Amino acid sequence: MEGRFFKVKTSQEVLAIIDGFHPLDEEFAAVEQGLGRVLSRDITAPEDLPAFSRSSVDGFAVRARDTFGATEAMPALCEIKGEVIMGEVPEGTLWAGTAWRIPTGGMLPEGADAVVMVEHSHLLDEKTVEITRPVSPLENVILPGDDFGKGSLVLGKGHRLRSQDLGVLAGLGILRVPVARRPRVAVISTGDEIVPIGKSPKPGQVRDINRITLSAFCINAGAEPFALGIFPDRFDAVAKAVRDGLEAADMVWISGGSSVGTRDLTLKVFETIPEFELLAHGISISPGKPTIIGKSRNKALVGLPGHVVSALVVAEIFMGRLLSRLSGESPVRTFLNQPIEAVLSRNVESAPGREDYIRVRLKEKQGIIYAEPIFAKSGLISSLVVSDGLIRIDVNCEGLYEGEKVPVLQFSTGLRTPWNGTPFIFER
Amino acid sequence: MEGRFFKVKTSQEVLAIIDGFHPLDEEFAAVEQGLGRVLSRDITAPEDLPAFSRSSVDGFAVRARDTFGATEAMPALCEIKGEVIMGEVPEGTLWAGTAWRIPTGGMLPEGADAVVMVEHSHLLDEKTVEITRPVSPLENVILPGDDFGKGSLVLGKGHRLRSQDLGVLAGLGILRVPVARRPRVAVISTGDEIVPIGKSPKPGQVRDINRITLSAFCINAGAEPFALGIFPDRFDAVAKAVRDGLEAADMVWISGGSSVGTRDLTLKVFETIPEFELLAHGISISPGKPTIIGKSRNKALVGLPGHVVSALVVAEIFMGRLLSRLSGESPVRTFLNQPIEAVLSRNVESAPGREDYIRVRLKEKQGIIYAEPIFAKSGLISSLVVSDGLIRIDVNCEGLYEGEKVPVLQFSTGLRTPWNGTPFIFER
Repeated sequence: MEGRFFKVKTSQEVLAIIDGFHPLDEEFAAVEQGLGRVLSRDITAPEDLPAFSRSSVDGFAVRARDTFGATEAMPALCEIKGEVIMGEVPEGTLWAGTAWRIPTGGMLPEGADAVVMVEHSHLLDEKTVEITRPVSPLENVILPGDDFGKGSLVLGKGHRLRSQDLGVLAGLGILRVPVARRPRVAVISTGDEIVPIGKSPKPGQVRDINRITLSAFCINAGAEPFALGIFPDRFDAVAKAVRDGLEAADMVWISGGSSVGTRDLTLKVFETIPEFELLAHGISISPGKPTIIGKSRNKALVGLPGHVVSALVVAEIFMGRLLSRLSGESPVRTFLNQPIEAVLSRNVESAPGREDYIRVRLKEKQGIIYAEPIFAKSGLISSLVVSDGLIRIDVNCEGLYEGEKVPVLQFSTGLRTPWNGTPFIFER
Repeated sequence: MEGRFFKVKTSQEVLAIIDGFHPLDEEFAAVEQGLGRVLSRDITAPEDLPAFSRSSVDGFAVRARDTFGATEAMPALCEIKGEVIMGEVPEGTLWAGTAWRIPTGGMLPEGADAVVMVEHSHLLDEKTVEITRPVSPLENVILPGDDFGKGSLVLGKGHRLRSQDLGVLAGLGILRVPVARRPRVAVISTGDEIVPIGKSPKPGQVRDINRITLSAFCINAGAEPFALGIFPDRFDAVAKAVRDGLEAADMVWISGGSSVGTRDLTLKVFETIPEFELLAHGISISPGKPTIIGKSRNKALVGLPGHVVSALVVAEIFMGRLLSRLSGESPVRTFLNQPIEAVLSRNVESAPGREDYIRVRLKEKQGIIYAEPIFAKSGLISSLVVSDGLIRIDVNCEGLYEGEKVPVLQFSTGLRTPWNGTPFIFER
């Protein structure tokens, strides 16, 4: 088998190849639709946020010096001369020895330089308030631009947008957000035995599992998949599908046809594409070895293994990163996606010279998370369903031992998973 | 302040309250649109998967006993009598002493009980193959139902669907998937100072940051938000909005109006709702204390703090879990969402008797992840943008020390983040 792959690459080499792809062009997303999109340029504040001096507490706007030395026993007395109404500009000026009622978020009246919290005040009568603690100038006050001064950097190019980022952009009046276009992925299934999922397979036939799995993976990674259909293992049919895919998409994923002849067919088809460059003909990992990666300009042509288990491992390890790269996501911050640490529940062997990805199920016992390797007969799909993630055995390693701590790359649902009852996991 | 909250609850009490809500009713999702949805019942296999005996390798279908004792030096000889075509039923029977060519995934011919890998064979001529290693019965064969036998459990109720789960469902011909309806959240902004994000705020006014942030949070958690708009802090206006929201949604989130009077208004409005039950009037956490949680039947009424920082902390810690609960997600598996562990970069103080949530930024230095607390002036929004997650300081704890390991709940983008160059983090 080995001899068939002329450009077998290690996983590190493949990751470097992937990092050679360029981000896609820019488009503008409505801020309401920006979740998970990646900024295509630095965003600077077009105006001050906040735009005016605001109180950060409920209380009394004052001149700080009027409160100096105030105590419970010797409170400062202020005459109440006004009230700040939310959303309105306070009319008039706050003079020495006076105070204005002010709600959280209210605009500071002219002349005021601090706010006394309502807890540190005591009403003598409707017109007079006792201040029982001094405030320093600017205490409980947010100045214009304290959040973001006009022209300052708000969010950097390559940042993937979260809920709060969208809120801040909206707060600054940035309603159209410059982002990298979502990668479009043409998903092609090949194989004479594959039938559409809506059809009842005859003996010898199977439904198109790969299309559904790989399309969902793309959505999960922020890409736009579209399935071109199922094609027989014939040069003309596959060549046309690849050309159609390349025209409409940023990359083409062929999967299916796991038999030897078909793998050759995929490469032969790729080689007819103008400016095609073969980058990897095989990756030295298991499962997932018979993967072909090439490019034509900035468009990737990928031949994924036909078996869905192998195809998904390659997607998790490499295609997610390629999609991220095309989205222009900053690699600097991707360390945030840490695998979770678990304790291996039994020994796992591996052949030296091979990088293995082992499916594991996570189980919790008495606060400890165990990774239980799933040893399934080769070719079974069910192993993916019962597993929660992957562990990796390095190429130079002959195996991992029971009790060892291993990082687990979890499979994702594409959604925020709720946090597991805070108090328990945060006990010290 | 304390006296105003008659039903202040601890975070643990609030989580227990949340777990008292019931999952929403069932609907059917197309398998193509099932990513992240939660199964509303157990799924059993309607048929065997695979449906027929398949080869898991490229090679030769044989009778295992014909290969017993075969070695490189003394190979077993078989006459090649046929070839399995992908997707077709092999015609004829495989007799003793013969072999059929078979591709991966091909259907086993009648009479064959094992497959010899092509690597362990050697063609003598077009009609004869030497087998150089014995195979046992069923070796390299997947039997009908090996993945899932008809009637066996495929995925359990409460499971949130991932790419591979959808693939397997499609493979079994399950094209309409029973799932819990997505929670619909009516998002109401209140406050006389709030203007729609498309409007230029006048002095004293601010744009509706909360609507954008909370709506995106809902999407991220698999819910369907709809914004009812911005309402002045007046009983009639807010009461109508809440009633409209309850009619159309599964829960109502009011946010804004962080001043004391407004909080009272929210509760007063809630109390006019039929069958309203106040569950929490304040949560003993910081930020996020002035949160109101109540219900009317199975519908939640939530008054979130007006400040977006506090509102988002409450959403991350409690509302995500409530949405998960309404989706029927199995709490058993939520331990999978582990906070990542980081090293605290400096001391953090906390008042005993208060549960604190501190925003942190994660930084990597020489392979170690540090959590750097963000100490922002109260009321600043920018702290949310520069932070990557939250750490928690327990109510009985006076602070955390520099160098201590802390779990960090990361903010999410709603998308699968690509894994950070496998090889580096998996070195042992």
